[in-house]
Amino acid sequence: MSAPLPSTFAGIQNDIARALEQLLAPGGAATPDPVLDAMRYTLLAPSKRVRAVLVHLAADVCGDSARALPAASAVECIHAASLMLDDLPSMDDAPLRRGRPSAHVAHGEAVAILAAFGLLNLAYGHLARAYPAPLAARITALYTDAVGLDGLIAGQAEDVLATDAVIDFNTLERIHRRKTGVLFGAAAQAGALSAGANENAIASLTSYAKNLGLAFQIVDDLLDVVGTEAETGKAVRADARKMTFVSFSGVDGARELANDLCATAERALDPFGRRADPLRELARFVAGRRV
Amino acid sequence: MSAPLPSTFAGIQNDIARALEQLLAPGGAATPDPVLDAMRYTLLAPSKRVRAVLVHLAADVCGDSARALPAASAVECIHAASLMLDDLPSMDDAPLRRGRPSAHVAHGEAVAILAAFGLLNLAYGHLARAYPAPLAARITALYTDAVGLDGLIAGQAEDVLATDAVIDFNTLERIHRRKTGVLFGAAAQAGALSAGANENAIASLTSYAKNLGLAFQIVDDLLDVVGTEAETGKAVRADARKMTFVSFSGVDGARELANDLCATAERALDPFGRRADPLRELARFVAGRRV
Repeated sequence: MSAPLPSTFAGIQNDIARALEQLLAPGGAATPDPVLDAMRYTLLAPSKRVRAVLVHLAADVCGDSARALPAASAVECIHAASLMLDDLPSMDDAPLRRGRPSAHVAHGEAVAILAAFGLLNLAYGHLARAYPAPLAARITALYTDAVGLDGLIAGQAEDVLATDAVIDFNTLERIHRRKTGVLFGAAAQAGALSAGANENAIASLTSYAKNLGLAFQIVDDLLDVVGTEAETGKAVRADARKMTFVSFSGVDGARELANDLCATAERALDPFGRRADPLRELARFVAGRRV
Repeated sequence: MSAPLPSTFAGIQNDIARALEQLLAPGGAATPDPVLDAMRYTLLAPSKRVRAVLVHLAADVCGDSARALPAASAVECIHAASLMLDDLPSMDDAPLRRGRPSAHVAHGEAVAILAAFGLLNLAYGHLARAYPAPLAARITALYTDAVGLDGLIAGQAEDVLATDAVIDFNTLERIHRRKTGVLFGAAAQAGALSAGANENAIASLTSYAKNLGLAFQIVDDLLDVVGTEAETGKAVRADARKMTFVSFSGVDGARELANDLCATAERALDPFGRRADPLRELARFVAGRRV
Protein backbone atom coordinates (compact mmCIF):
# COMPACT_ATOMS: atom_id res chain seq x y z
CA MET A 1 0.00 0.00 0.00
CA SER A 2 1.20 3.52 -0.63
CA ALA A 3 2.15 5.80 2.28
CA PRO A 4 -0.32 5.61 5.17
CA LEU A 5 -2.14 8.69 6.47
CA PRO A 6 -0.42 10.58 9.32
CA SER A 7 -1.03 8.93 12.70
CA THR A 8 -3.29 11.85 13.73
CA PHE A 9 -6.02 10.14 11.73
CA ALA A 10 -5.60 6.63 13.14
CA GLY A 11 -8.46 7.00 15.63
CA ILE A 12 -10.90 8.03 12.92
CA GLN A 13 -9.69 5.26 10.64
CA ASN A 14 -10.22 2.68 13.38
CA ASP A 15 -13.77 3.89 14.03
CA ILE A 16 -14.55 3.60 10.34
CA ALA A 17 -12.98 0.16 10.02
CA ARG A 18 -15.13 -1.07 12.92
CA ALA A 19 -18.28 0.43 11.43
CA LEU A 20 -17.63 -1.21 8.06
CA GLU A 21 -16.97 -4.56 9.69
CA GLN A 22 -20.34 -4.32 11.48
CA LEU A 23 -22.10 -3.33 8.29
CA LEU A 24 -20.89 -6.51 6.59
CA ALA A 25 -20.90 -8.84 9.59
CA PRO A 26 -21.38 -12.44 8.43
CA GLY A 27 -24.96 -13.50 9.19
CA GLY A 28 -25.86 -16.35 11.52
CA ALA A 29 -26.73 -18.59 8.56
CA ALA A 30 -24.45 -21.55 8.03
CA THR A 31 -24.68 -21.27 4.25
CA PRO A 32 -21.69 -19.62 2.60
CA ASP A 33 -22.47 -16.36 0.84
CA PRO A 34 -20.01 -15.73 -2.00
CA VAL A 35 -21.31 -12.21 -2.66
CA LEU A 36 -20.92 -11.17 0.97
CA ASP A 37 -17.41 -12.65 0.94
CA ALA A 38 -16.50 -10.57 -2.11
CA MET A 39 -18.02 -7.43 -0.58
CA ARG A 40 -15.97 -7.99 2.59
CA TYR A 41 -12.86 -8.76 0.54
CA THR A 42 -12.86 -5.34 -1.08
CA LEU A 43 -14.53 -3.12 1.53
CA LEU A 44 -12.51 -4.41 4.48
CA ALA A 45 -9.11 -4.56 2.75
CA PRO A 46 -6.44 -2.31 4.26
CA SER A 47 -6.97 1.19 2.92
CA LYS A 48 -6.42 4.81 3.89
CA ARG A 49 -10.20 5.42 3.74
CA VAL A 50 -9.44 9.00 2.87
CA ARG A 51 -13.01 9.77 1.76
CA ALA A 52 -14.42 8.60 5.08
CA VAL A 53 -11.79 10.58 7.00
CA LEU A 54 -12.86 13.59 4.96
CA VAL A 55 -16.51 13.15 6.02
CA HIS A 56 -15.43 13.02 9.63
CA LEU A 57 -13.07 16.02 9.45
CA ALA A 58 -15.65 18.13 7.59
CA ALA A 59 -18.23 17.37 10.28
CA ASP A 60 -15.71 18.07 13.01
CA VAL A 61 -14.65 21.45 11.66
CA CYS A 62 -18.36 22.38 11.59
CA GLY A 63 -18.54 21.59 15.28
CA ASP A 64 -20.13 18.14 15.57
CA SER A 65 -18.79 14.83 14.29
CA ALA A 66 -21.26 12.69 16.26
CA ARG A 67 -23.38 11.90 13.21
CA ALA A 68 -20.62 11.53 10.63
CA LEU A 69 -20.10 7.78 10.75
CA PRO A 70 -22.98 6.50 8.55
CA ALA A 71 -22.13 8.99 5.79
CA ALA A 72 -18.46 8.01 6.14
CA SER A 73 -19.31 4.30 5.86
CA ALA A 74 -21.60 4.86 2.90
CA VAL A 75 -18.97 6.79 0.94
CA GLU A 76 -16.50 3.95 1.47
CA CYS A 77 -19.09 1.43 0.20
CA ILE A 78 -19.58 3.56 -2.92
CA HIS A 79 -15.84 3.95 -3.46
CA ALA A 80 -15.17 0.22 -2.99
CA ALA A 81 -17.94 -0.58 -5.49
CA SER A 82 -16.36 1.75 -8.03
CA LEU A 83 -12.95 0.10 -7.58
CA MET A 84 -14.45 -3.34 -8.25
CA LEU A 85 -16.00 -2.09 -11.47
CA ASP A 86 -12.86 -0.21 -12.58
CA ASP A 87 -10.79 -3.39 -12.29
CA LEU A 88 -13.13 -5.64 -14.35
CA PRO A 89 -11.83 -7.28 -17.54
CA SER A 90 -14.16 -5.12 -19.65
CA MET A 91 -12.75 -1.96 -18.01
CA ASP A 92 -9.15 -1.59 -16.79
CA ASP A 93 -8.60 -5.38 -16.54
CA ALA A 94 -6.46 -4.84 -13.44
CA PRO A 95 -5.06 -7.93 -11.70
CA LEU A 96 -4.12 -6.29 -8.37
CA ARG A 97 -5.85 -3.94 -5.94
CA ARG A 98 -4.85 -2.95 -2.44
CA GLY A 99 -1.94 -5.41 -2.63
CA ARG A 100 -4.08 -8.45 -3.41
CA PRO A 101 -5.69 -10.04 -6.47
CA SER A 102 -8.58 -7.88 -7.71
CA ALA A 103 -12.06 -8.95 -6.66
CA HIS A 104 -12.94 -10.59 -9.98
CA VAL A 105 -9.67 -12.54 -9.93
CA ALA A 106 -10.29 -13.76 -6.39
CA HIS A 107 -14.07 -14.27 -6.55
CA GLY A 108 -14.98 -14.64 -10.23
CA GLU A 109 -16.38 -11.95 -12.47
CA ALA A 110 -20.10 -12.55 -11.90
CA VAL A 111 -19.74 -12.50 -8.13
CA ALA A 112 -17.53 -9.38 -8.26
CA ILE A 113 -20.10 -7.49 -10.34
CA LEU A 114 -22.90 -8.51 -8.00
CA ALA A 115 -20.79 -7.54 -4.97
CA ALA A 116 -20.14 -4.09 -6.44
CA PHE A 117 -23.87 -3.74 -6.98
CA GLY A 118 -24.41 -4.92 -3.42
CA LEU A 119 -22.05 -2.29 -2.00
CA LEU A 120 -23.74 0.55 -3.85
CA ASN A 121 -27.11 -0.74 -2.68
CA LEU A 122 -25.87 -1.09 0.89
CA ALA A 123 -24.66 2.51 0.94
CA TYR A 124 -28.17 3.84 0.32
CA GLY A 125 -29.87 1.30 2.56
CA HIS A 126 -27.54 2.26 5.40
CA LEU A 127 -28.20 5.99 4.99
CA ALA A 128 -31.96 5.37 5.00
CA ARG A 129 -31.80 3.37 8.22
CA ALA A 130 -29.07 5.16 10.17
CA TYR A 131 -30.15 8.79 9.82
CA PRO A 132 -33.25 10.81 10.61
CA ALA A 133 -35.21 10.83 7.34
CA PRO A 134 -34.50 14.45 6.27
CA LEU A 135 -30.74 13.98 6.63
CA ALA A 136 -30.90 10.59 4.90
CA ALA A 137 -32.73 12.10 1.95
CA ARG A 138 -30.27 15.00 1.60
CA ILE A 139 -27.16 12.84 1.75
CA THR A 140 -28.73 10.26 -0.57
CA ALA A 141 -29.42 13.01 -3.11
CA LEU A 142 -25.80 14.21 -2.78
CA TYR A 143 -24.27 10.77 -3.16
CA THR A 144 -26.51 9.67 -6.03
CA ASP A 145 -25.50 12.83 -7.89
CA ALA A 146 -21.83 12.09 -7.19
CA VAL A 147 -22.22 8.55 -8.55
CA GLY A 148 -24.40 9.40 -11.53
CA LEU A 149 -24.15 10.87 -14.99
CA ASP A 150 -22.00 13.83 -13.97
CA GLY A 151 -19.98 11.82 -11.46
CA LEU A 152 -18.25 8.46 -11.00
CA ILE A 153 -20.17 6.56 -13.67
CA ALA A 154 -19.66 9.23 -16.31
CA GLY A 155 -15.98 9.57 -15.42
CA GLN A 156 -15.39 5.85 -15.58
CA ALA A 157 -17.20 5.54 -18.92
CA GLU A 158 -15.17 8.34 -20.47
CA ASP A 159 -11.98 6.90 -18.99
CA VAL A 160 -12.64 3.43 -20.46
CA LEU A 161 -13.62 4.84 -23.84
CA ALA A 162 -10.50 7.06 -23.86
CA THR A 163 -8.10 4.11 -23.53
CA ASP A 164 -5.75 4.13 -26.54
CA ALA A 165 -7.25 7.47 -27.62
CA VAL A 166 -5.72 10.93 -27.77
CA ILE A 167 -7.56 13.29 -25.46
CA ASP A 168 -7.00 16.93 -24.58
CA PHE A 169 -6.13 18.29 -21.15
CA ASN A 170 -9.69 19.51 -20.49
CA THR A 171 -11.07 16.04 -21.13
CA LEU A 172 -8.52 14.51 -18.77
CA GLU A 173 -9.37 17.07 -16.12
CA ARG A 174 -13.10 16.34 -16.53
CA ILE A 175 -12.56 12.58 -16.26
CA HIS A 176 -10.65 12.92 -13.00
CA ARG A 177 -12.95 15.56 -11.59
CA ARG A 178 -15.81 13.11 -12.10
CA LYS A 179 -13.91 10.00 -11.01
CA THR A 180 -12.41 11.52 -7.87
CA GLY A 181 -13.18 15.19 -7.26
CA VAL A 182 -16.96 14.87 -7.23
CA LEU A 183 -17.07 12.11 -4.61
CA PHE A 184 -14.51 13.93 -2.46
CA GLY A 185 -16.75 17.00 -2.67
CA ALA A 186 -19.84 15.00 -1.76
CA ALA A 187 -18.04 13.42 1.19
CA ALA A 188 -17.14 16.83 2.62
CA GLN A 189 -20.67 18.13 2.05
CA ALA A 190 -22.19 15.08 3.72
CA GLY A 191 -20.00 15.56 6.76
CA ALA A 192 -20.93 19.22 6.97
CA LEU A 193 -24.64 18.41 6.57
CA SER A 194 -24.45 15.80 9.31
CA ALA A 195 -23.15 18.58 11.59
CA GLY A 196 -25.92 20.97 10.61
CA ALA A 197 -23.48 23.38 8.93
CA ASN A 198 -24.55 26.55 7.13
CA GLU A 199 -24.30 27.12 3.37
CA ASN A 200 -21.07 29.12 3.56
CA ALA A 201 -19.27 26.42 5.48
CA ILE A 202 -20.55 23.78 3.06
CA ALA A 203 -19.35 25.79 0.06
CA SER A 204 -15.85 26.27 1.53
CA LEU A 205 -15.51 22.59 2.37
CA THR A 206 -16.75 21.52 -1.05
CA SER A 207 -14.15 23.73 -2.73
CA TYR A 208 -11.45 22.31 -0.45
CA ALA A 209 -12.47 18.72 -1.16
CA LYS A 210 -12.82 18.98 -4.93
CA ASN A 211 -9.31 20.42 -5.26
CA LEU A 212 -7.97 17.85 -2.84
CA GLY A 213 -9.59 15.04 -4.84
CA LEU A 214 -8.08 16.16 -8.11
CA ALA A 215 -4.66 16.47 -6.45
CA PHE A 216 -5.09 12.99 -5.01
CA GLN A 217 -5.72 11.62 -8.49
CA ILE A 218 -2.71 13.38 -9.98
CA VAL A 219 -0.51 11.88 -7.27
CA ASP A 220 -1.99 8.47 -8.16
CA ASP A 221 -0.88 9.04 -11.74
CA LEU A 222 2.59 9.90 -10.46
CA LEU A 223 2.75 6.78 -8.32
CA ASP A 224 1.81 4.72 -11.38
CA VAL A 225 4.91 6.09 -13.11
CA VAL A 226 7.48 6.31 -10.32
CA GLY A 227 6.24 3.72 -7.79
CA THR A 228 6.65 -0.02 -7.51
CA GLU A 229 3.91 -2.64 -7.26
CA ALA A 230 4.88 -3.40 -3.65
CA GLU A 231 4.57 0.26 -2.73
CA THR A 232 1.26 1.03 -4.45
CA GLY A 233 -0.55 -2.28 -3.95
CA LYS A 234 -1.57 -2.39 -7.59
CA ALA A 235 0.02 -3.07 -10.92
CA VAL A 236 2.13 -0.07 -11.96
CA ARG A 237 2.68 1.29 -15.46
CA ALA A 238 -0.97 0.16 -15.92
CA ASP A 239 -1.80 3.56 -17.37
CA ALA A 240 0.59 3.21 -20.30
CA ARG A 241 -2.38 3.01 -22.69
CA LYS A 242 -3.99 6.09 -21.18
CA MET A 243 -3.07 9.73 -21.20
CA THR A 244 -2.49 10.97 -17.65
CA PHE A 245 -1.45 14.19 -15.96
CA VAL A 246 2.11 12.89 -16.16
CA SER A 247 1.94 12.38 -19.92
CA PHE A 248 0.74 15.97 -20.30
CA SER A 249 2.99 17.71 -17.77
CA GLY A 250 5.86 15.34 -17.00
CA VAL A 251 6.72 14.14 -13.50
CA ASP A 252 7.81 17.55 -12.22
CA GLY A 253 4.90 19.38 -13.84
CA ALA A 254 2.39 16.94 -12.37
CA ARG A 255 3.94 17.32 -8.91
CA GLU A 256 3.67 21.08 -9.25
CA LEU A 257 0.03 20.85 -10.33
CA ALA A 258 -0.80 18.64 -7.34
CA ASN A 259 0.95 21.08 -5.00
CA ASP A 260 -0.97 24.02 -6.49
CA LEU A 261 -4.29 22.23 -6.08
CA CYS A 262 -3.50 21.40 -2.46
CA ALA A 263 -2.57 25.03 -1.80
CA THR A 264 -5.88 26.13 -3.35
CA ALA A 265 -7.64 23.57 -1.16
CA GLU A 266 -5.95 24.95 1.94
CA ARG A 267 -6.94 28.52 1.09
CA ALA A 268 -10.61 27.47 1.04
CA LEU A 269 -10.21 26.63 4.73
CA ASP A 270 -9.38 30.21 5.79
CA PRO A 271 -12.84 30.95 7.21
CA PHE A 272 -12.41 28.13 9.73
CA GLY A 273 -9.17 29.40 11.26
CA ARG A 274 -7.09 26.97 13.34
CA ARG A 275 -10.00 24.58 13.74
CA ALA A 276 -9.31 23.40 10.19
CA ASP A 277 -5.75 22.29 10.95
CA PRO A 278 -6.54 18.57 10.56
CA LEU A 279 -7.92 19.30 7.06
CA ARG A 280 -4.74 21.25 6.30
CA GLU A 281 -2.67 18.32 7.49
CA LEU A 282 -4.63 16.06 5.13
CA ALA A 283 -3.94 18.40 2.20
CA ARG A 284 -0.24 18.51 3.01
CA PHE A 285 -0.17 14.74 3.20
CA VAL A 286 -1.71 14.50 -0.28
CA ALA A 287 0.69 17.09 -1.69
CA GLY A 288 3.69 15.40 -0.10
CA ARG A 289 2.68 11.80 -0.78
CA ARG A 290 5.76 9.99 -1.92
CA VAL A 291 6.51 6.38 -2.51
CA MET B 1 -42.74 -9.72 -26.57
CA SER B 2 -44.92 -12.16 -24.67
CA ALA B 3 -48.63 -11.47 -24.23
CA PRO B 4 -49.35 -7.85 -23.24
CA LEU B 5 -51.22 -6.98 -20.06
CA PRO B 6 -55.01 -6.63 -20.40
CA SER B 7 -56.04 -3.24 -21.80
CA THR B 8 -57.43 -2.23 -18.38
CA PHE B 9 -53.85 -1.42 -17.41
CA ALA B 10 -52.91 0.63 -20.49
CA GLY B 11 -53.52 3.97 -18.77
CA ILE B 12 -51.23 3.09 -15.89
CA GLN B 13 -48.59 1.74 -18.26
CA ASN B 14 -48.66 4.98 -20.26
CA ASP B 15 -48.22 7.10 -17.14
CA ILE B 16 -45.23 5.00 -16.14
CA ALA B 17 -43.68 5.09 -19.60
CA ARG B 18 -43.94 8.90 -19.60
CA ALA B 19 -42.41 9.16 -16.12
CA LEU B 20 -39.48 6.93 -17.11
CA GLU B 21 -38.89 8.94 -20.27
CA GLN B 22 -38.71 12.14 -18.18
CA LEU B 23 -36.37 10.51 -15.68
CA LEU B 24 -33.90 9.74 -18.48
CA ALA B 25 -34.52 12.76 -20.71
CA PRO B 26 -31.40 13.54 -22.75
CA GLY B 27 -29.68 16.62 -21.26
CA GLY B 28 -29.12 19.82 -23.16
CA ALA B 29 -25.43 19.04 -23.59
CA ALA B 30 -24.32 18.38 -27.13
CA THR B 31 -21.84 15.69 -26.06
CA PRO B 32 -23.09 12.15 -26.57
CA ASP B 33 -23.51 10.14 -23.40
CA PRO B 34 -23.09 6.42 -24.07
CA VAL B 35 -24.15 5.41 -20.55
CA LEU B 36 -27.37 7.41 -20.75
CA ASP B 37 -28.04 5.86 -24.15
CA ALA B 38 -27.63 2.37 -22.69
CA MET B 39 -29.84 3.22 -19.71
CA ARG B 40 -32.54 4.49 -22.08
CA TYR B 41 -32.11 1.45 -24.32
CA THR B 42 -33.05 -0.95 -21.55
CA LEU B 43 -35.36 1.09 -19.34
CA LEU B 44 -37.48 2.51 -22.16
CA ALA B 45 -37.74 -0.70 -24.23
CA PRO B 46 -41.30 -2.01 -24.69
CA SER B 47 -42.22 -3.93 -21.56
CA LYS B 48 -45.26 -4.89 -19.52
CA ARG B 49 -43.84 -2.98 -16.53
CA VAL B 50 -45.72 -5.36 -14.30
CA ARG B 51 -43.82 -4.33 -11.13
CA ALA B 52 -44.71 -0.68 -11.64
CA VAL B 53 -48.35 -1.59 -12.35
CA LEU B 54 -48.30 -3.52 -9.09
CA VAL B 55 -47.09 -0.44 -7.15
CA HIS B 56 -49.92 1.58 -8.64
CA LEU B 57 -52.63 -1.04 -8.04
CA ALA B 58 -51.49 -1.61 -4.44
CA ALA B 59 -51.67 2.12 -3.77
CA ASP B 60 -55.05 2.34 -5.47
CA VAL B 61 -56.62 -0.50 -3.49
CA CYS B 62 -55.47 1.32 -0.33
CA GLY B 63 -57.40 4.37 -1.45
CA ASP B 64 -54.83 6.76 -2.93
CA SER B 65 -52.61 6.25 -5.96
CA ALA B 66 -51.56 9.91 -6.19
CA ARG B 67 -48.09 9.26 -4.78
CA ALA B 68 -47.40 5.89 -6.43
CA LEU B 69 -45.49 7.06 -9.49
CA PRO B 70 -41.96 7.65 -8.07
CA ALA B 71 -41.97 4.25 -6.34
CA ALA B 72 -43.27 2.68 -9.57
CA SER B 73 -40.51 4.34 -11.62
CA ALA B 74 -37.83 3.36 -9.11
CA VAL B 75 -38.83 -0.31 -9.13
CA GLU B 76 -38.62 -0.37 -12.93
CA CYS B 77 -35.11 1.18 -12.76
CA ILE B 78 -34.07 -1.55 -10.33
CA HIS B 79 -35.62 -4.29 -12.46
CA ALA B 80 -34.02 -3.00 -15.67
CA ALA B 81 -30.63 -2.85 -13.93
CA SER B 82 -31.02 -6.47 -12.84
CA LEU B 83 -31.88 -7.57 -16.39
CA MET B 84 -28.73 -5.90 -17.73
CA LEU B 85 -26.61 -7.77 -15.20
CA ASP B 86 -28.39 -11.11 -15.75
CA ASP B 87 -27.63 -10.96 -19.47
CA LEU B 88 -23.88 -10.24 -19.15
CA PRO B 89 -21.36 -12.71 -20.59
CA SER B 90 -20.18 -13.63 -17.08
CA MET B 91 -23.78 -14.43 -16.06
CA ASP B 92 -26.43 -15.80 -18.44
CA ASP B 93 -24.61 -14.58 -21.57
CA ALA B 94 -27.96 -13.82 -23.19
CA PRO B 95 -27.93 -12.26 -26.66
CA LEU B 96 -31.53 -11.01 -26.73
CA ARG B 97 -33.79 -9.10 -24.35
CA ARG B 98 -37.18 -7.53 -24.98
CA GLY B 99 -36.90 -8.51 -28.63
CA ARG B 100 -33.60 -6.71 -29.27
CA PRO B 101 -29.88 -7.33 -28.75
CA SER B 102 -29.04 -7.33 -25.02
CA ALA B 103 -27.54 -4.12 -23.66
CA HIS B 104 -23.96 -5.38 -23.63
CA VAL B 105 -24.30 -6.58 -27.23
CA ALA B 106 -25.66 -3.22 -28.35
CA HIS B 107 -23.55 -0.91 -26.16
CA GLY B 108 -20.48 -2.90 -25.12
CA GLU B 109 -19.93 -4.65 -21.85
CA ALA B 110 -18.30 -1.81 -19.88
CA VAL B 111 -21.02 0.66 -20.78
CA ALA B 112 -23.76 -1.88 -20.01
CA ILE B 113 -22.34 -2.56 -16.55
CA LEU B 114 -22.04 1.18 -15.84
CA ALA B 115 -25.58 1.74 -17.12
CA ALA B 116 -26.94 -0.96 -14.80
CA PHE B 117 -25.10 0.73 -11.94
CA GLY B 118 -26.55 4.04 -13.10
CA LEU B 119 -30.10 2.72 -13.05
CA LEU B 120 -29.79 1.34 -9.52
CA ASN B 121 -28.30 4.64 -8.42
CA LEU B 122 -31.04 6.61 -10.17
CA ALA B 123 -33.74 4.61 -8.39
CA TYR B 124 -32.54 5.75 -4.97
CA GLY B 125 -31.79 9.30 -6.08
CA HIS B 126 -35.30 9.62 -7.47
CA LEU B 127 -36.93 8.35 -4.28
CA ALA B 128 -34.87 10.81 -2.20
CA ARG B 129 -35.94 13.76 -4.34
CA ALA B 130 -39.52 12.89 -5.26
CA TYR B 131 -40.93 11.96 -1.85
CA PRO B 132 -41.27 13.62 1.53
CA ALA B 133 -38.23 12.42 3.46
CA PRO B 134 -39.96 9.91 5.79
CA LEU B 135 -41.62 8.12 2.87
CA ALA B 136 -38.38 8.21 0.85
CA ALA B 137 -36.48 6.61 3.71
CA ARG B 138 -39.06 3.84 4.22
CA ILE B 139 -39.28 2.91 0.55
CA THR B 140 -35.48 3.11 0.18
CA ALA B 141 -35.11 0.69 3.09
CA LEU B 142 -37.67 -1.64 1.48
CA TYR B 143 -36.07 -1.57 -1.96
CA THR B 144 -32.48 -1.89 -0.73
CA ASP B 145 -33.57 -4.99 1.22
CA ALA B 146 -35.23 -6.40 -1.89
CA VAL B 147 -32.07 -5.87 -3.94
CA GLY B 148 -29.61 -7.02 -1.30
CA LEU B 149 -28.26 -10.19 0.22
CA ASP B 150 -31.67 -11.81 0.73
CA GLY B 151 -33.05 -10.47 -2.53
CA LEU B 152 -32.16 -9.94 -6.18
CA ILE B 153 -28.38 -10.02 -5.78
CA ALA B 154 -28.42 -13.20 -3.72
CA GLY B 155 -30.87 -14.86 -6.09
CA GLN B 156 -28.82 -13.97 -9.13
CA ALA B 157 -25.59 -15.19 -7.52
CA GLU B 158 -27.13 -18.52 -6.58
CA ASP B 159 -28.71 -18.82 -10.03
CA VAL B 160 -25.37 -18.23 -11.80
CA LEU B 161 -23.50 -20.60 -9.51
CA ALA B 162 -26.20 -23.27 -9.98
CA THR B 163 -25.76 -23.37 -13.77
CA ASP B 164 -24.80 -26.93 -14.76
CA ALA B 165 -25.39 -28.04 -11.15
CA VAL B 166 -28.02 -30.33 -9.66
CA ILE B 167 -30.15 -28.42 -7.17
CA ASP B 168 -33.14 -29.45 -5.10
CA PHE B 169 -36.62 -28.01 -5.35
CA ASN B 170 -36.19 -25.86 -2.21
CA THR B 171 -33.09 -24.23 -3.67
CA LEU B 172 -34.90 -23.50 -6.92
CA GLU B 173 -37.81 -22.02 -5.01
CA ARG B 174 -35.44 -19.84 -2.95
CA ILE B 175 -33.64 -18.59 -6.07
CA HIS B 176 -36.87 -17.51 -7.70
CA ARG B 177 -38.35 -16.08 -4.53
CA ARG B 178 -35.28 -13.86 -4.28
CA LYS B 179 -35.01 -13.07 -8.00
CA THR B 180 -38.69 -12.25 -8.50
CA GLY B 181 -40.90 -12.70 -5.44
CA VAL B 182 -39.05 -10.33 -3.15
CA LEU B 183 -39.13 -7.36 -5.54
CA PHE B 184 -42.80 -8.00 -6.36
CA GLY B 185 -43.46 -7.94 -2.60
CA ALA B 186 -41.49 -4.72 -2.13
CA ALA B 187 -43.35 -3.10 -5.04
CA ALA B 188 -46.71 -3.85 -3.46
CA GLN B 189 -45.53 -2.63 -0.05
CA ALA B 190 -44.15 0.57 -1.53
CA GLY B 191 -47.46 1.28 -3.24
CA ALA B 192 -49.36 0.65 -0.02
CA LEU B 193 -46.94 2.85 1.97
CA SER B 194 -47.32 5.67 -0.54
CA ALA B 195 -51.07 5.52 0.14
CA GLY B 196 -50.57 5.57 3.91
CA ALA B 197 -51.99 2.05 4.32
CA ASN B 198 -52.18 0.23 7.65
CA GLU B 199 -50.11 -2.83 8.60
CA ASN B 200 -52.88 -5.32 7.83
CA ALA B 201 -53.36 -4.03 4.33
CA ILE B 202 -49.61 -4.05 3.75
CA ALA B 203 -49.34 -7.66 4.94
CA SER B 204 -52.17 -8.82 2.67
CA LEU B 205 -50.71 -7.08 -0.36
CA THR B 206 -47.23 -8.42 0.33
CA SER B 207 -48.57 -11.97 0.49
CA TYR B 208 -50.47 -11.42 -2.75
CA ALA B 209 -47.41 -10.00 -4.52
CA LYS B 210 -44.88 -12.62 -3.40
CA ASN B 211 -47.10 -15.45 -4.64
CA LEU B 212 -47.80 -13.57 -7.84
CA GLY B 213 -44.07 -13.02 -8.40
CA LEU B 214 -43.22 -16.67 -8.00
CA ALA B 215 -46.05 -17.62 -10.38
CA PHE B 216 -44.75 -15.05 -12.86
CA GLN B 217 -41.32 -16.68 -12.78
CA ILE B 218 -42.73 -20.17 -13.25
CA VAL B 219 -44.65 -19.00 -16.30
CA ASP B 220 -41.38 -17.51 -17.60
CA ASP B 221 -39.81 -20.96 -17.25
CA LEU B 222 -42.74 -22.40 -19.19
CA LEU B 223 -42.39 -19.82 -21.95
CA ASP B 224 -38.71 -20.71 -22.25
CA VAL B 225 -39.76 -24.30 -23.01
CA VAL B 226 -42.90 -23.90 -25.08
CA GLY B 227 -42.48 -20.40 -26.60
CA THR B 228 -40.64 -19.05 -29.62
CA GLU B 229 -38.06 -16.28 -29.70
CA ALA B 230 -40.46 -13.99 -31.57
CA GLU B 231 -43.09 -14.51 -28.90
CA THR B 232 -40.92 -14.06 -25.81
CA GLY B 233 -38.48 -11.41 -27.10
CA LYS B 234 -35.52 -13.38 -25.81
CA ALA B 235 -33.60 -16.49 -26.75
CA VAL B 236 -35.63 -19.56 -25.80
CA ARG B 237 -34.35 -22.90 -24.53
CA ALA B 238 -31.72 -20.69 -22.81
CA ASP B 239 -32.41 -22.47 -19.55
CA ALA B 240 -31.28 -25.88 -20.84
CA ARG B 241 -28.23 -25.74 -18.55
CA LYS B 242 -30.35 -24.85 -15.54
CA MET B 243 -32.89 -26.71 -13.54
CA THR B 244 -36.26 -24.97 -13.70
CA PHE B 245 -39.75 -25.53 -12.39
CA VAL B 246 -40.47 -27.31 -15.67
CA SER B 247 -37.58 -29.73 -15.23
CA PHE B 248 -38.92 -30.58 -11.77
CA SER B 249 -42.64 -30.73 -12.50
CA GLY B 250 -43.05 -30.99 -16.27
CA VAL B 251 -45.10 -28.57 -18.36
CA ASP B 252 -48.45 -29.53 -16.87
CA GLY B 253 -47.14 -29.63 -13.32
CA ALA B 254 -45.54 -26.21 -13.67
CA ARG B 255 -48.78 -24.78 -15.06
CA GLU B 256 -50.67 -26.23 -12.13
CA LEU B 257 -48.16 -24.77 -9.66
CA ALA B 258 -48.47 -21.32 -11.24
CA ASN B 259 -52.27 -21.57 -11.09
CA ASP B 260 -52.17 -22.58 -7.43
CA LEU B 261 -49.88 -19.66 -6.55
CA CYS B 262 -52.16 -17.23 -8.36
CA ALA B 263 -55.17 -18.63 -6.51
CA THR B 264 -53.30 -18.17 -3.20
CA ALA B 265 -52.44 -14.64 -4.27
CA GLU B 266 -56.10 -13.90 -4.97
CA ARG B 267 -57.21 -15.23 -1.59
CA ALA B 268 -54.90 -12.72 0.12
CA LEU B 269 -57.05 -10.01 -1.45
CA ASP B 270 -60.26 -11.04 0.37
CA PRO B 271 -60.07 -8.22 2.97
CA PHE B 272 -60.28 -5.65 0.18
CA GLY B 273 -63.52 -6.94 -1.36
CA ARG B 274 -64.44 -5.80 -4.87
CA ARG B 275 -61.96 -2.91 -4.73
CA ALA B 276 -59.20 -5.43 -5.39
CA ASP B 277 -60.65 -6.57 -8.71
CA PRO B 278 -57.82 -5.03 -10.78
CA LEU B 279 -55.29 -7.00 -8.69
CA ARG B 280 -57.39 -10.14 -9.27
CA GLU B 281 -57.36 -9.45 -12.98
CA LEU B 282 -53.55 -9.15 -12.86
CA ALA B 283 -53.30 -12.53 -11.08
CA ARG B 284 -55.57 -14.17 -13.65
CA PHE B 285 -53.50 -12.70 -16.43
CA VAL B 286 -50.35 -14.20 -14.93
CA ALA B 287 -52.01 -17.59 -14.42
CA GLY B 288 -53.41 -17.59 -17.93
CA ARG B 289 -50.38 -16.13 -19.71
CA ARG B 290 -49.90 -18.11 -22.87
CA VAL B 291 -47.67 -17.66 -25.83
